[in-house]
Amino acid sequence: MCAQLIDIPEIDKAEARRLQVLDAAATCFRVAGFHAASMASIAKAAGMSVGHIYHYFDNKEAIISAIIDREQHKQLQVIHMLLHAENTIAALIEHAAEGLADSLDLSNSALNFEMIAEASRNPKVAEMLQASNRVLHEFGKDIITKARQGLPALSEADNDARCDLIISLFNGLSMRAISNPDLDTEAILPALQRTIVQIVRS
Amino acid sequence: MCAQLIDIPEIDKAEARRLQVLDAAATCFRVAGFHAASMASIAKAAGMSVGHIYHYFDNKEAIISAIIDREQHKQLQVIHMLLHAENTIAALIEHAAEGLADSLDLSNSALNFEMIAEASRNPKVAEMLQASNRVLHEFGKDIITKARQGLPALSEADNDARCDLIISLFNGLSMRAISNPDLDTEAILPALQRTIVQIVRS
Repeated sequence: MCAQLIDIPEIDKAEARRLQVLDAAATCFRVAGFHAASMASIAKAAGMSVGHIYHYFDNKEAIISAIIDREQHKQLQVIHMLLHAENTIAALIEHAAEGLADSLDLSNSALNFEMIAEASRNPKVAEMLQASNRVLHEFGKDIITKARQGLPALSEADNDARCDLIISLFNGLSMRAISNPDLDTEAILPALQRTIVQIVRS
Repeated sequence: MCAQLIDIPEIDKAEARRLQVLDAAATCFRVAGFHAASMASIAKAAGMSVGHIYHYFDNKEAIISAIIDREQHKQLQVIHMLLHAENTIAALIEHAAEGLADSLDLSNSALNFEMIAEASRNPKVAEMLQASNRVLHEFGKDIITKARQGLPALSEADNDARCDLIISLFNGLSMRAISNPDLDTEAILPALQRTIVQIVRS
């Protein structure tokens, strides 16, 4: 491995190993389901010993927690871009294409379904998802507020509801991609963009 | 059991037993996940012998198929009501409350997530969900056509896209109920109703 040939600081090596475990675990959860994926099978997929895996993560929940953190980090980058755009509504419309492509990416969403299915029976996993969501939801409301410049202010509950609807649209499209493999991205994008504008600005 | 005391025809008894297996299987899939739920555990939950279960269903996929059929039957009843309403758009707005309540019913959606997660790794389950969806999707498009009375006709692709978006909204709300337990139904309903009208009639 390159890491053994050149001089990479220990901390980076540890981080690289950690990411290697996350990728392996994501694959195992997707392929076998969260319950059937054992720490041993994750270790095998990561090309490490089981002992080595436990050096980075205490159990499968800790791996899920790290996967959720990684997803949150990705979402925060999008939020940062939207909050700093000159024209928020134009940025939202433009970003819808990328959001739609992400929602329809099966390798990504299969892992999400597995986590949601697990969260619906495992309160610890539900709490992790919910804690991450609370952070993203507050930023989502800030984006809606910015995108409504010039319009009357929304009540807190109304802003919450609109934020929930937009997130639901993208989540739902990822489910729809499974039940309708003929989903027509080109036809959906303009309807999705119109819908987002209506939810934000009506 | 009552069925042994009064004179119920054999065919009804068999149907009642079949439904008993479906309910038991739904609970097992929800609690343990599709993979971890064995035919033996389903038999135990249904209070039957394993041999008896195999009398009704060849395997777990056959049980999923029956669960999907039952859900389709439920959806067809709603579709029938919407297609025969005097004012389609008013009926859609009115039915949104019930659709929202269904989406937020965790015992129902937990099973849906389990099936979607399984469909995303098991082509046989994916094909079952997709076949059922094709039927419902065509009726969904008929409802949109009826609800657009007086407006220009949509292209096939545009009607498909709008139908996909509405279904995605309800699916997504069921995922959102897991990641945001503070979901405010009262605030969401009017925003959801406005959004449905916009998707159908814009």
